Formats: sequence, C-alpha cells, structure tokens
Amino acid sequence: MDIREYLKEQADLINDKIREYIPSGTPKKLFDAMAYSLMAGGKRIRPVLIVESAKAVGKENVEEIIDIAVAAEFLHTYSLIHDDLPAMDDDDLRRGKPTCHKVYGEAIAILAGDGLQSYAFELVSKNKNISSDKLVKVINILAHGTGIYGMVGGQAADILHEKENSFDDIHFIHTHKTAKFIQSCCQIGAVLSDASKEEEEALKNYGLYIGLAFQIWDDILDEIGDEEKLGKKTKKDREKNKLTYPSVYGLEKSKNIAKNYVEKAINEIKILKNPEILQEIANYIISREV
Amino acid sequence: MDIREYLKEQADLINDKIREYIPSGTPKKLFDAMAYSLMAGGKRIRPVLIVESAKAVGKENVEEIIDIAVAAEFLHTYSLIHDDLPAMDDDDLRRGKPTCHKVYGEAIAILAGDGLQSYAFELVSKNKNISSDKLVKVINILAHGTGIYGMVGGQAADILHEKENSFDDIHFIHTHKTAKFIQSCCQIGAVLSDASKEEEEALKNYGLYIGLAFQIWDDILDEIGDEEKLGKKTKKDREKNKLTYPSVYGLEKSKNIAKNYVEKAINEIKILKNPEILQEIANYIISREV
Repeated sequence: MDIREYLKEQADLINDKIREYIPSGTPKKLFDAMAYSLMAGGKRIRPVLIVESAKAVGKENVEEIIDIAVAAEFLHTYSLIHDDLPAMDDDDLRRGKPTCHKVYGEAIAILAGDGLQSYAFELVSKNKNISSDKLVKVINILAHGTGIYGMVGGQAADILHEKENSFDDIHFIHTHKTAKFIQSCCQIGAVLSDASKEEEEALKNYGLYIGLAFQIWDDILDEIGDEEKLGKKTKKDREKNKLTYPSVYGLEKSKNIAKNYVEKAINEIKILKNPEILQEIANYIISREV
Repeated sequence: MDIREYLKEQADLINDKIREYIPSGTPKKLFDAMAYSLMAGGKRIRPVLIVESAKAVGKENVEEIIDIAVAAEFLHTYSLIHDDLPAMDDDDLRRGKPTCHKVYGEAIAILAGDGLQSYAFELVSKNKNISSDKLVKVINILAHGTGIYGMVGGQAADILHEKENSFDDIHFIHTHKTAKFIQSCCQIGAVLSDASKEEEEALKNYGLYIGLAFQIWDDILDEIGDEEKLGKKTKKDREKNKLTYPSVYGLEKSKNIAKNYVEKAINEIKILKNPEILQEIANYIISREV
C-alpha cells in the first residue's frame, strides 16, 4: 500500500461526506462563504486521523462517527478563514485560491468562521449513533483542543510573540496552534472506539508528537517548498517575521527534531491492535511536499 | 417585589459566577481581552433567563446549572466583540467603555471572541451535575440558537440586508440575530428542569416573543434613549443605515408590536408552575430605559 494514495482516497471519502454535511440556508452569501472555504481543498488530515485512530483501536463501523470527523474539518476551516483575515496573517491566497474574505468580504468571512465553529458543535451534538456520555467527552476534547488552551491560544501567541526567548515561544506556539488539535483528533478516535485508558493515552501522545512534526515540517516547506505544488507563496513566514523552527534552529536541526517526534509517535502506538496505518501517516508527515 | 431591583440582584449573582469561571492562562493578553469584555457590564439577561426559566418549571437547585448560565453569557460576549469589529459594526464604545479591539487590537479581539465561543461549549461539557443526555441537548440548542440558523445568520442578514423588502428582512434579522438565542436560553431552562414537552414548548414560545420584543425595544431606545444612561451614542442605527423597527414601521407602531409580543409571551407561560417572575421580566423588557 502506498500511503500517499491511501490518504488521497481517504481524503476523497471525507470530501464526499463534507459535501453531504455542508449546511444550506439564508442568507445565501454566508452559506456560500462557508461552502467555498470548506471545499477549497486540503489534506483533510484531522478527520482522517479521527477515523484512523478509531480503526487502530479496532473500530469497524466508522460510518457512525463520520459526522464527527467532518465536524473537525469544519473547525479547522473556521480557523483558516480567521487566520487569513487582514487583521491576522493577512493572506490573499490559500491553496492557490483567493481566501474567504477576498471573495466574500471581511464581515462575512468573520461570520462564516464563527458559524463553522458553532455548526461543528451542533453536528457532534446531533450524532445519534454514539452515547451521550461519549459525545460530551468528544465535545470537551474538541472545544479544549481548538480553544484558548489549544489552537486559539497558539494563534494568539504566534501573533504576540516576542523575538527574545524564542526557544520556549516556538514550542508553545507549535504545541498550541497545531499539535493540540491534532492530538484531540487522535484522542477522539480513541474515545469513539472504546479504547482502554492506556490506548487513549498512547493515541494522545502519538497525536501530540505528529502534530509537532507536522507543524515543523510546514515551517520547513515554507522555507524550501515548491510554490506551485503548495499553492501559495513560500518564505511568507520569514517575510512576516514569524517565529519558525528553521528560523530558530536552522533547517537541518529542524528536520532532525521533526524526525525524532515521528519516531516517538510510532513507538507510542505499538500497543494498539492495528497501528500500521497511523505509523505510515507519521512517516508521511515528514516526507510530504505539500 | 420590584422587578428592576430583582434583576439587578440576579445580575450581581451572575457577575460573581462569571468572575469565578473566567479562565486564566497564556498568552496573558488573550485572557485579559476575554476578561475585559466579560466584565464590561451588561444586564446578563440570557443567564438570568436560563435560571428563571428553570425555576418557573419548578427547579430548586439552580446552583448546579449556573455554569451553563455563565456559558450563555460567554457566547453573548463573543458575539458583541465580533459585532463591534471595524469590518462589522465598527463601534468604538460599548456600555460607555472602549470596545475590545480598541483596547487589545483587532487580531486579539477576533481570537478573544473565537476563544469565548469554544470555552462556552467547554464549560457546558464540564458540568458534572447534569446527565450527559441533557448536556448534549443543551449544547445542541446553544449551538443552533447562536449559530448559522440563529444569531450568526441574523448578523449576516443584518450586514447584507437590502432596503427593498424591508418588512420581511427586519423580521428575519430580529428573529435570528436576537430572538433565537434568547429562545434557546428559555428552552435550556426547561430542559435542565425536567419540563414536560408542553412546558418546554411554552418556554420556547415565550423566549421567541420576548426576544423579538427585546430587540424592537433596543431599536426604539436607539432612536429615543438617553445617551448617558445607555452608555453609547443613540441614533447609531440610523447613521449606519441599519434596518430597524422604527425605520420600517415608525415609533408608535413599533411600540405596539413590542407590547403585543409581550402579551403573547405572558400568555404562553400561564401553564407553568411559577410563571410570575418571567411574566414580570416580559413587562420589564418594554419599559426599560437601558
């Protein structure tokens, strides 16, 4: 099995489900803006991790949790829309396409992000296959991982960072901005498949390590990636004076740190029933070109 | 009992609880921005309605649902922060104080709003007194009432409205922007106190009607209110060419429409065990000066 091909297939499946769950309503422009950003492409790595983490513990019927996987992508998409805003990272392009506020204006982009966030929690709360006890836990993990103690906190730190004390700052930013949400996805997969405490802990650690590797590799790609493949300008981080791993540690050391995290991630999940695909995903993260 | 005094006492109790539940953490500026907007005053009408709706059905121990009432105010505060942004209503003052983005900058204001939203769902998910079945229902009602089919949808319609077809537009905007969230609070009170289907329906209708009366009265106060008491400039809506009840129906007819909603609201909840306070709140809404 080629992991790239496998992930592409899984992303296509998730895309079909996202299309199915895209809400429609009035005012049309708000719903169009949400759909535009949801369907603007992407690796769908967070929903895939929810599904694959559940499978790794032994879950067979993943159809009954697919709406929760979709909800995670709704949250990711909301964060991208807000991150791209002029007051934030001020990006005109994302994956080669104009960003949400470029097409629909800033006000609608802010509201599309807000609406995707609330709709993600609404989606999870509507799931009828999973027990309420588990749904409450999933909502808690998602809200925590994407909120002030996770993604939102990390994005704030990224914007506010001070160049002094970079070693601590870069680790805080990457952990919170990216790794905690990815960790949440892996933990949710565990919760949704009746994992033991030990298995849940293993998946949490795996998620944190690959989340960190993922963001370091993104920093590296921003430095040395192919603009055409990435669908965006590279060296943006440097232009914007962003704190990145290559800027703090240099390119080679950054690669080694990422590799080290991937090894730790792979090691963590050896105890699972079916760890293979997650292990390949970990390796894929630090070999990808986009 | 004087309802103004009673509501003031209840708001003080809610303020104490908000203070207790305000999160702290890193980066400090993000948490400061959230706390600043949370403690900037306000009538706390949404949390009060959750508590009073529960009491109206017969709930005695409201302490065990107070965190959910606080979560509703977190959601309301997030919406105010985002509504005030330059790309939205562009307001410098709220309740006589500089708005969040004026003090902390736009990026942090956007993130403070985002973080208050996710933390509201996190708070509800952490409640240990209420069954998971009920918590999932509460989360569903909150996400729906504040999301794309409620508050966010209404705010988008408000921004996008076209002056033609004003009668339909103004009703859509008020219903979604304000009434649905207030309705959610009343319904949540019902859910949290084991209301019968009939009682829950009565509280839903009550909430919708007072929500509409509330927003119409806000429009009226914007037209004729006392700037000093309100802590903000009046006639802002007119300046901004906003669709309001007075602009569509005139002042007197608007007052009558609001009164009519209040009568319907009072009538709806006659079947409840203790309807009195909610009925007084309904009357208060169309007699308030702030």
